[in-house]
Amino acid sequence: MADPYVHGYHAREHERLHDQAGALVDLLHSDTAYPSGAKVLEAGCGVGAQTVTLAQRSPDARFVAVDVSAESIAEAERRVRDAGRANVEFRQADLFSLPFEAESFDHVFVCFVLEHLSRPVAALETLGKVLRPGGTITVIEGDHGSAYFHPDSAAARAAIECQVELQRRAGGDALIGRRVHPIMTEAGFDAIRVSPRMVYVDSSRPELVDGFTRRTFTAMIEGVRESAVAAGLSDAESFDAGVRDLHRTAEADGVFCYCFFKGVGEKWRSAV
Amino acid sequence: MADPYVHGYHAREHERLHDQAGALVDLLHSDTAYPSGAKVLEAGCGVGAQTVTLAQRSPDARFVAVDVSAESIAEAERRVRDAGRANVEFRQADLFSLPFEAESFDHVFVCFVLEHLSRPVAALETLGKVLRPGGTITVIEGDHGSAYFHPDSAAARAAIECQVELQRRAGGDALIGRRVHPIMTEAGFDAIRVSPRMVYVDSSRPELVDGFTRRTFTAMIEGVRESAVAAGLSDAESFDAGVRDLHRTAEADGVFCYCFFKGVGEKWRSAV
Repeated sequence: MADPYVHGYHAREHERLHDQAGALVDLLHSDTAYPSGAKVLEAGCGVGAQTVTLAQRSPDARFVAVDVSAESIAEAERRVRDAGRANVEFRQADLFSLPFEAESFDHVFVCFVLEHLSRPVAALETLGKVLRPGGTITVIEGDHGSAYFHPDSAAARAAIECQVELQRRAGGDALIGRRVHPIMTEAGFDAIRVSPRMVYVDSSRPELVDGFTRRTFTAMIEGVRESAVAAGLSDAESFDAGVRDLHRTAEADGVFCYCFFKGVGEKWRSAV
Repeated sequence: MADPYVHGYHAREHERLHDQAGALVDLLHSDTAYPSGAKVLEAGCGVGAQTVTLAQRSPDARFVAVDVSAESIAEAERRVRDAGRANVEFRQADLFSLPFEAESFDHVFVCFVLEHLSRPVAALETLGKVLRPGGTITVIEGDHGSAYFHPDSAAARAAIECQVELQRRAGGDALIGRRVHPIMTEAGFDAIRVSPRMVYVDSSRPELVDGFTRRTFTAMIEGVRESAVAAGLSDAESFDAGVRDLHRTAEADGVFCYCFFKGVGEKWRSAV
């Protein structure tokens, strides 16, 4: 997992991921629950934005949360402790060399991770190895090509494209959401079912105007301003105009749309 | 309603609209039902693709279906008759000069119509006048900017953009779906609730691969080939490459996404 993490590791990014998890938790996770005693691997837990939700929603399952960043794990551990959860064990490890025995997990959960990897299918194959036959894998990813809005704005679209291009240069794919089904298929999982989780925001949904349009999506785009300018993908003025137009979609007559994709598959064969 | 109808009035287009209604009927209409005795105006019924569904789902409501095209009405009447429904009355009329008394309908339904009009807000205001206080209006529109797919293709995106541009030149807006909430708000309706109806297609949903990706969306884009080339928006070769790439998304590892928007509002004031 040598690919650099395009969003960076700063405090403001931690805050953004936390807001994101708060606003979207029901949309993304309401149908994820693991039974009592199940052993679940969360691969790429980051700062624990999803880990707390998982641990709360399946209080009698045992989670093992793995991330490549020791700093992120420290933050995730703090959050899980603050939430009063004791059913999560943390391990620092690379996703491609997991320190676990084959078929040692009942379920695997991986959220907002594949988008950052140059070999997402290989990553899923690796995760398939530690999953027991009959177990499930859950994959959640966004897709920045699913973002459209009113008022439409070429400047805003160009700013988003900067983020997509930066992620591409870092080896990732910010448009991976639409590929969840083919990627899971290629990795050898069975009974794959992908469901879109569309975030639709207009002024009748003020919690999403603030929690998603402003504090999740626009904040994420704002977060790559320096990198985009440094990489010559935009000049500061054009980029700022794009961000301004994204904020404009959060006004009374604005609309913002985005889509996450959630895939659940099973492992039927003993050797994926 | 002098705006030319960008999709044309040919037999193949009738077929396409019929396929579309078949594949999407549950997604778009499952939550639309009118009570016994309710008088409902369907504005812009076209060839009756939605009219049959409305009449079947609310068999004890009385529908008045209006369209500006006598030819379309003849086709719609035939379809409703073939479906064994007797609760629809047809009238040829322009949406902007409806032959009805003020506040004479309990409900109004308008689907895939505003996208073709240069003054969609004025159209909704006109419809609001024939709606009684306390009645509801239902608005359904697509948004071609909501189309994205795997494999991604610049040629396919360019072919779609031809359709968007043709519709723009004809006075319409193929990206109107995202604007349903602000348009209904501007027209003065109350308690407006817009819900996205996303069509997600992968190979695990073969009925949508055929019924939507191929026979609805790609067929619609194919339908503007001659107009796009004649208007100089594309050359035949580029356009055909785009259509080929759209068909490519219907193969085993392909994915296609599109979104409709359904808005329901109420009329609280007696003079909208």
